[in-house]
Amino acid sequence: MTFSLPPATVTLDGPRFVVQYDYSAPAEGDARQVAIEIALEQTVELSWEITSPGDIRDRVVGQLESLTLTDNDRWSARISYPVEAIAGSIPGLINTMFANTSMKQGIKVTDLEIPSAVAGLFPGPQHGVHGVRQLLNAPDRPLIGTALKPLGYSAERLAEIARAFAMGGIDIIKDDHNLHDQRFATFRERTARCADAVNQSNARTGGQSLYAPHVSGPIDSMLERAHLATELGAGALEIMPGIMGYDAIRLLVTDGPGLPVLSHPALLGTYTLSKEQGIAHAVVFGTLARLAGADITIFTHFGGRFSTTKQDCEALIAAAARPVDGMKPILPMPGGGMTVSRVPEIVDFYGNDVILLISGDLFRTEQSLEEAARHFCNAVRDIK
Amino acid sequence: MTFSLPPATVTLDGPRFVVQYDYSAPAEGDARQVAIEIALEQTVELSWEITSPGDIRDRVVGQLESLTLTDNDRWSARISYPVEAIAGSIPGLINTMFANTSMKQGIKVTDLEIPSAVAGLFPGPQHGVHGVRQLLNAPDRPLIGTALKPLGYSAERLAEIARAFAMGGIDIIKDDHNLHDQRFATFRERTARCADAVNQSNARTGGQSLYAPHVSGPIDSMLERAHLATELGAGALEIMPGIMGYDAIRLLVTDGPGLPVLSHPALLGTYTLSKEQGIAHAVVFGTLARLAGADITIFTHFGGRFSTTKQDCEALIAAAARPVDGMKPILPMPGGGMTVSRVPEIVDFYGNDVILLISGDLFRTEQSLEEAARHFCNAVRDIK
Repeated sequence: MTFSLPPATVTLDGPRFVVQYDYSAPAEGDARQVAIEIALEQTVELSWEITSPGDIRDRVVGQLESLTLTDNDRWSARISYPVEAIAGSIPGLINTMFANTSMKQGIKVTDLEIPSAVAGLFPGPQHGVHGVRQLLNAPDRPLIGTALKPLGYSAERLAEIARAFAMGGIDIIKDDHNLHDQRFATFRERTARCADAVNQSNARTGGQSLYAPHVSGPIDSMLERAHLATELGAGALEIMPGIMGYDAIRLLVTDGPGLPVLSHPALLGTYTLSKEQGIAHAVVFGTLARLAGADITIFTHFGGRFSTTKQDCEALIAAAARPVDGMKPILPMPGGGMTVSRVPEIVDFYGNDVILLISGDLFRTEQSLEEAARHFCNAVRDIK
Repeated sequence: MTFSLPPATVTLDGPRFVVQYDYSAPAEGDARQVAIEIALEQTVELSWEITSPGDIRDRVVGQLESLTLTDNDRWSARISYPVEAIAGSIPGLINTMFANTSMKQGIKVTDLEIPSAVAGLFPGPQHGVHGVRQLLNAPDRPLIGTALKPLGYSAERLAEIARAFAMGGIDIIKDDHNLHDQRFATFRERTARCADAVNQSNARTGGQSLYAPHVSGPIDSMLERAHLATELGAGALEIMPGIMGYDAIRLLVTDGPGLPVLSHPALLGTYTLSKEQGIAHAVVFGTLARLAGADITIFTHFGGRFSTTKQDCEALIAAAARPVDGMKPILPMPGGGMTVSRVPEIVDFYGNDVILLISGDLFRTEQSLEEAARHFCNAVRDIK
């Protein structure tokens, strides 16, 4: 007779949310055993026989909603957890989804279903596809983005490049994610000069280009940078949730200046690259970015210099727009070695609700950066 | 003739830090090419031919310091970056180390060398091995830790368990990382009751057990929870940098109440599991946790229910204690399915500077939790 835990004194009869895990197992019995281990690991962290009966065993522990053989020995287990487990926070949600199971070989999160009971806990994207289009005065065409670089340039020189991009007609000119608050281009000076350059160009061209400075850095400087950026004339904000935490996006939404938020994929590749483990591309760059409140999700498109697949990108399109009660769809911003010559193909793949992110290719121009930017914009506008 | 970027107007002659990357390549020329691509990707994000000459090409771009064939077709490239690139922040350091390269197949960060020019940017661990030992009045023996669980229990019931663990003599009683601020055991009530239970037990036993509540949740609630925990009598704080960001640890050190910080490995397994990609176990749980300021780093020991290897743990021991100018060594806290019967073997492996983390196994007792805790403590104290 072993010690046994008394039942819980609380009741949990609230809504649940579902996470889907994929893994290999030789037979259904084994697959079911893996699912039970995940369900315990992600909640009580006790083995089944010592988990107290009653509501802890029946409701706190993840419940196996379905188990499906998808391919050879591959299984998809859909496990539900009580929404109350996440304690109303983005970190709580991510924790319940995958925290300790990330340390076991061969288990991949392939879906996260967001019921309104979860969506309602967070403000979500404030602008979404429609809001960003309004800011850009571009109701339906594909949108155009680029990155300001390279690291090492002074704020003044970066502003010259931003000016060229805006004069050429680029919609969103974002900082390269390596630009933080370096001595040779401080956050304040870079943002001031680049925002000025873009806004002055708008005044000349009649355009509505937005400059999006990168506000990652010390977490307790982020909101200050975000508000400063707004004062200095920035039009959007960029952040790296893989390094700053997804809750940094939520904080930018709840306590920031209200500008559209771009989520950058830095460090997140490790989750998405392997078919065997981690978290699916669509969940990382689609569902989580959107739930946290990003309006625009940057990720690597397939066929560039990164290791993304076509299926990853298809699933992401779906996750960015999947109907969720009260949550706006967001804009995919595929990049990572894209070229202007690929514009028709990329738009064909994503449809018009996309921001094409091309940067390095513009620097390969035989003309000026402004001409290169114009050539890119024309390539997008020429699409029928 | 393509457009060419003018040289930078700034000079960078400051100190550098080194990141080591491991990958496969058929021959030295290919291995060198991969290294150059990493060096560009992590800095200027431009191809070499359009990177402007002068200090950007020569100093901002990562420099290949050494390239070594380690095994068959495996190469180790040591690449140095200017410390100024990280702009004095933990997110900046992690970004420069691996941000975009994480999205390429087959590249793993296997070392991060911390020169004093980097260490000096951050406060580092405030207590370290020696400081934690002083708080516990345990100058040289192996230390003893456990986790309070399960999720779903009321604060009152969790406090009963905390009391049993403290009466049994456990040094550090930490929250299971699934305990956040759930309705049925709010952060405030749980911390108040559990800290009281532990402190009252100390008064009875003459012990110096510490209760470590988990302060993860909304990032803008973290410091408030940390200060509240101190007022309520907690003795340490637990945080999940994989979900909250490593800079959350730094913020707990610079703006928190000064209690020892425990770093929990949630979500970080995906980085460390694969030999082919991600970031090495020792870098994630050793170097980064220590640099950010954790005093205690929790991770999964080999041979438990997680997929960690013996080599991973050996490297971690080295990283936790590696001499770094002005930075205290920190305590490894291996857990994840450890049992009391393994205590001698684990201590033999880590030496005395370790906190043994055993939790689920205590609940399998045939006696009371207090007896189970005492049995665990005796197993540690019996080691000669």
